[in-house]
Amino acid sequence: MVKVVICGGSGYAGSELLRILALHPGVEVTAVTSEQSAGKYVTDLFPHLFRYKGLRYGHLERQVLLDKGDVFFTALPHSASQETVDYFYKNGKKVIDFSADYRLKDPEDYRQWYGVQHRYQDTLKDAVYGLPEIYREKIRGASVIANPGCYPTSIILALYPAIAHGIVVPETIVADSKSGVSGAGRKSEVGYSFCEVNQGFRAYGIGNHRHTPEIEQELSAIARQSLPNSLPKSLKITFTPHLLPINRGILSTVYADLGTQYADMPGDTKLDDIVALYKETFRKEPFVDVMEKGGYPDVKNVRGTNYCQIGIGIGRTGKLIAVAAIDNLVKGAAGQAVQNMNILYGFDETTALDSLAVNP
Amino acid sequence: MVKVVICGGSGYAGSELLRILALHPGVEVTAVTSEQSAGKYVTDLFPHLFRYKGLRYGHLERQVLLDKGDVFFTALPHSASQETVDYFYKNGKKVIDFSADYRLKDPEDYRQWYGVQHRYQDTLKDAVYGLPEIYREKIRGASVIANPGCYPTSIILALYPAIAHGIVVPETIVADSKSGVSGAGRKSEVGYSFCEVNQGFRAYGIGNHRHTPEIEQELSAIARQSLPNSLPKSLKITFTPHLLPINRGILSTVYADLGTQYADMPGDTKLDDIVALYKETFRKEPFVDVMEKGGYPDVKNVRGTNYCQIGIGIGRTGKLIAVAAIDNLVKGAAGQAVQNMNILYGFDETTALDSLAVNP
Amino acid sequence: MVKVVICGGSGYAGSELLRILALHPGVEVTAVTSEQSAGKYVTDLFPHLFRYKGLRYGHLERQVLLDKGDVFFTALPHSASQETVDYFYKNGKKVIDFSADYRLKDPEDYRQWYGVQHRYQDTLKDAVYGLPEIYREKIRGASVIANPGCYPTSIILALYPAIAHGIVVPETIVADSKSGVSGAGRKSEVGYSFCEVNQGFRAYGIGNHRHTPEIEQELSAIARQSLPNSLPKSLKITFTPHLLPINRGILSTVYADLGTQYADMPGDTKLDDIVALYKETFRKEPFVDVMEKGGYPDVKNVRGTNYCQIGIGIGRTGKLIAVAAIDNLVKGAAGQAVQNMNILYGFDETTALDSLAVNP
Amino acid sequence: MVKVVICGGSGYAGSELLRILALHPGVEVTAVTSEQSAGKYVTDLFPHLFRYKGLRYGHLERQVLLDKGDVFFTALPHSASQETVDYFYKNGKKVIDFSADYRLKDPEDYRQWYGVQHRYQDTLKDAVYGLPEIYREKIRGASVIANPGCYPTSIILALYPAIAHGIVVPETIVADSKSGVSGAGRKSEVGYSFCEVNQGFRAYGIGNHRHTPEIEQELSAIARQSLPNSLPKSLKITFTPHLLPINRGILSTVYADLGTQYADMPGDTKLDDIVALYKETFRKEPFVDVMEKGGYPDVKNVRGTNYCQIGIGIGRTGKLIAVAAIDNLVKGAAGQAVQNMNILYGFDETTALDSLAVNP
Repeated sequence: MVKVVICGGSGYAGSELLRILALHPGVEVTAVTSEQSAGKYVTDLFPHLFRYKGLRYGHLERQVLLDKGDVFFTALPHSASQETVDYFYKNGKKVIDFSADYRLKDPEDYRQWYGVQHRYQDTLKDAVYGLPEIYREKIRGASVIANPGCYPTSIILALYPAIAHGIVVPETIVADSKSGVSGAGRKSEVGYSFCEVNQGFRAYGIGNHRHTPEIEQELSAIARQSLPNSLPKSLKITFTPHLLPINRGILSTVYADLGTQYADMPGDTKLDDIVALYKETFRKEPFVDVMEKGGYPDVKNVRGTNYCQIGIGIGRTGKLIAVAAIDNLVKGAAGQAVQNMNILYGFDETTALDSLAVNP
Repeated sequence: MVKVVICGGSGYAGSELLRILALHPGVEVTAVTSEQSAGKYVTDLFPHLFRYKGLRYGHLERQVLLDKGDVFFTALPHSASQETVDYFYKNGKKVIDFSADYRLKDPEDYRQWYGVQHRYQDTLKDAVYGLPEIYREKIRGASVIANPGCYPTSIILALYPAIAHGIVVPETIVADSKSGVSGAGRKSEVGYSFCEVNQGFRAYGIGNHRHTPEIEQELSAIARQSLPNSLPKSLKITFTPHLLPINRGILSTVYADLGTQYADMPGDTKLDDIVALYKETFRKEPFVDVMEKGGYPDVKNVRGTNYCQIGIGIGRTGKLIAVAAIDNLVKGAAGQAVQNMNILYGFDETTALDSLAVNP
Repeated sequence: MVKVVICGGSGYAGSELLRILALHPGVEVTAVTSEQSAGKYVTDLFPHLFRYKGLRYGHLERQVLLDKGDVFFTALPHSASQETVDYFYKNGKKVIDFSADYRLKDPEDYRQWYGVQHRYQDTLKDAVYGLPEIYREKIRGASVIANPGCYPTSIILALYPAIAHGIVVPETIVADSKSGVSGAGRKSEVGYSFCEVNQGFRAYGIGNHRHTPEIEQELSAIARQSLPNSLPKSLKITFTPHLLPINRGILSTVYADLGTQYADMPGDTKLDDIVALYKETFRKEPFVDVMEKGGYPDVKNVRGTNYCQIGIGIGRTGKLIAVAAIDNLVKGAAGQAVQNMNILYGFDETTALDSLAVNP
Repeated sequence: MVKVVICGGSGYAGSELLRILALHPGVEVTAVTSEQSAGKYVTDLFPHLFRYKGLRYGHLERQVLLDKGDVFFTALPHSASQETVDYFYKNGKKVIDFSADYRLKDPEDYRQWYGVQHRYQDTLKDAVYGLPEIYREKIRGASVIANPGCYPTSIILALYPAIAHGIVVPETIVADSKSGVSGAGRKSEVGYSFCEVNQGFRAYGIGNHRHTPEIEQELSAIARQSLPNSLPKSLKITFTPHLLPINRGILSTVYADLGTQYADMPGDTKLDDIVALYKETFRKEPFVDVMEKGGYPDVKNVRGTNYCQIGIGIGRTGKLIAVAAIDNLVKGAAGQAVQNMNILYGFDETTALDSLAVNP
């Protein structure tokens, strides 16, 4: 039995991790921490987690916890995660971090977007970006995994085949994303109260959302591999997140100009071609579903699951339109973390992640 | 492997059954029928059922289906189920029926509430009401199981300990129930369209909802056992269903006068007493959660699961207030059906039913 | 022009008052206060209140405000309202108070349910309970109006004809009420955040909700008038509130045993009789809609309006079932306050209150 | 009193028209038709329209209706509207048409997108596109007004200043729009049932939504006026509609490359410049609210109202991002129709349209 410690388990990422791990035959949750809720039972905060009756939140006492875990899931606020991840890593443990602290490879990017220095750059260098569809082999041998952000997961998967195969012009990317409210965390802010969100819809963070550098870093890396000579070091994108009045789910509608090789191809042939390339790229992926031509995803199809569902179209002005849906708390957080853990420990990658969407 | 055939699989009960059975290691779905959707793929109607890619709906050709199944789940319209259940039963198969056709023991009740004759009264006599918390032993040996209605499941479980132990005066029962929209089925009616339901709330079927005789039958049976001499043959209740603007979930708030034995007991002692009795009654039940004093259920805690969560209070005028929450599609339909199948075939009763609520 | 001052205008009652008064030709809002938001623009908090661009929240400086208003709407927290109401009243102003501070006639009840002494009992004696359908004449001559609670408005109107005409046995009343989330106010609590409420439903405050004594006081008063000899001084009721995942609206389903005079009457005759009495009672009321036999209200029909819609049924065990729907922020708060103001100042009672529901 | 006849009043556009006109002091609704619901009361379908108790739907008997109306609102299905509009127009009446039949100036476009011939091209020539912010003067003298579609209204208003002032390169436009469910009409289709829509989100009609030619026609017309020499006759755009799980509201997020004149301008100066131009363009418009820099609209701010709220930003790759919110049933349908009627008859343009959003 792999022993699991969850540091920061009173938010939605933490409760979701508990929900998923309850079905995992190979692990045992030995401790869960929360500074705010230390002493309370997990079921006080999350009465739906019946299976954890009796489990209490403790404080994040690193030395005490060290022996309790083989793998540490850290779901702490951005910047607070730095030190904890470093501590467990340097003490020989596996760490899967939900924060942004180990996602950005360039410490300067991190400083600029998060407003603090990165004090553990050696550990940062060893961290692997935990998107299995791209980095599975690296993840297998990693000790620190930076679990991807929710928006980035949806946008990178939507564009990966298109950029890797040189289908689109990367400089023209527009990602119009819409996220359910749980993406904002378990918050006591008027702005996320039921009455303020329900029956509403709005854009936010235009031009400055913190997931931007993460998306740009990963799309740049893909582009550099496929077009080693032609691309500037750092690709920029237009990214507009919106707040959807639903509990879970992200749908990203991504636009990009097709490359010149498509200029004279008839529309239907283009689309057949591109759908085939997407299908081929993700052929062996257990959690990516590329839909047939004409099909588009709905967030409800992946609710509560680790799937990413992708549909492809071409607009009237010849742009590629890739639409990707994930559950922001599962493939966008806790599910992807468990997928990474499964890879790390050699479990079947779908263990505890094989349930279908609770729909309707 | 137990071979499963689903007759009538294009509604929400059917899709939910497929969702649950996808996680069951001991069964195999060999056929699923739908007259309206014959020829279509299951994923055409339910794109979230990834695991069933390639499975198509067929027609309900009983002779063809006979050899394909060990157990037949029939989710057909009321009255249409009669003959199909009888056919498979008489050909030696196990049948778990979602309709009301085999729930009412008295054919006269059936005729009165459903407007048609019951033509298979011998089979009706052999049918067992599939509420495991009360009839587990009978279910074990049954061949035809009448899977309970959703409202009845919530109300009967809310009152079972109270009536069985003579805590309340049965003639005074008021059941004020609220159900999510999936309880009405997968319907193309304006009245169930998003805009007509969302942000609304209303009572319906006051005094004449078809679940009434089923509830009365079962509560009467419990009362007769506990109070053999004092009760009229047929108990009547006041039952008011309401339509909640949520996808899933029933919450029943049930009121009844306490028996005279409680007249002079202090309020807190009464409540301690009654909660203890409820806990004792359901002590070994894997799917019933009796909350501590002061706790009340929320439908979100049981969403997507087979649990029934019950909270108990006492009102200012001394009435017992029992509040029960279930997921109408799981404990109120497909989950309870799988629970019954697990009992029938000696599987662990929680097989494929052990996931926690997808919450938020 | 009647000059209006709103004390406490940063909650939903306050914003709703501003919304309604924007359409009132006879009044002018001269000041609005909020301790938390003093200095901010009203449109910073409520971007939908376009008409109030330029209006800022000020502090509740009573002496400064005194000359600015003819009528003062006080939407302050319970117990904080006491002194402010008293101040404006004793300085010769009209006050319409949204808090519970002047609703309970018996200071002892107030102390018991709200945990504080009432320090202005002389003013309390002069206050009139602002339910126009019962107290219109008193309101006309009042200076302090205690604007009714939202649950009480729905329950009292649902039962008024039944108790006034001796139709029901008052001791048997059960009020099962369901309220939209705005009834809890504009709150930054996790429990009212979108994800915690959406797709959920639960009972709360069983046996101890603070609206209980207000409902009991008013139902007792009605009963004393109709049954002067037979009733105990203080009627008690069973009241269970529930939290509905909608923005606005209360639906109260109220049960009571019919009086013995109905014992031998056929069901249909009973119902005809009672519906006719309800219709007669509210015949001249501009905001009460008694539905025809068989009709039941939906909160969506009254959303955003000052209407109360009532439907009547009789249950299988012979109980009266009265169902009433209101918008908790309008007829349950700001709309009723404007209705009271209209009565006070001799405006047509429907002024600024004549719009229909924004539906769907 | 202007006499109003509504042809096709059983859908949401019709019910919304009735809701709005109930507050109009200068008009009288003399007849409302519905083939499906003829003989029924308006309140049978729409119980919230209290003011219309007694009004019944009639058949669309044109000769009978002719004398009953000065102005005819036609809310009939696309292509069914053609003949009715022509009939009333040729008999000297004013007609405001909600369908697409008189929106597309080029009959060939109409044939291509709607699959039928336009049989009244002379009347089509006389029709004016009813977007007051652009065509107010033409509307004043018109007899047939083609009331704009909901998506087009939001997208055209979002881009009008930008194209008219040559701020953007029109060929680069991407319009990512999200609409509430009422935009699909009052439909009895499973796909629009509560359970299928709630908690979901999806794109649809990618590359082929019928509002596309209408948007392109109007944006082309604006571009031709501002850039007479440089533009191809017919501009094409990329338009992706999405289905939002809310009752009402459209939010369109529109992207376009800035013109070369902005190439070397610092980001903040650009934005100041552009916001100022937007504000200047709509300075006198009673229903357009251009927000300050940094502000973005929310559909909830305009719910139930005729306002269009617009926010402007600039993305990281230098694109203009214009976000516009309207209520699809009001500014996107019935409200704009009443605004057009007010212009036609010289009423104050805001008559019956001055209420604020029912929010929360």
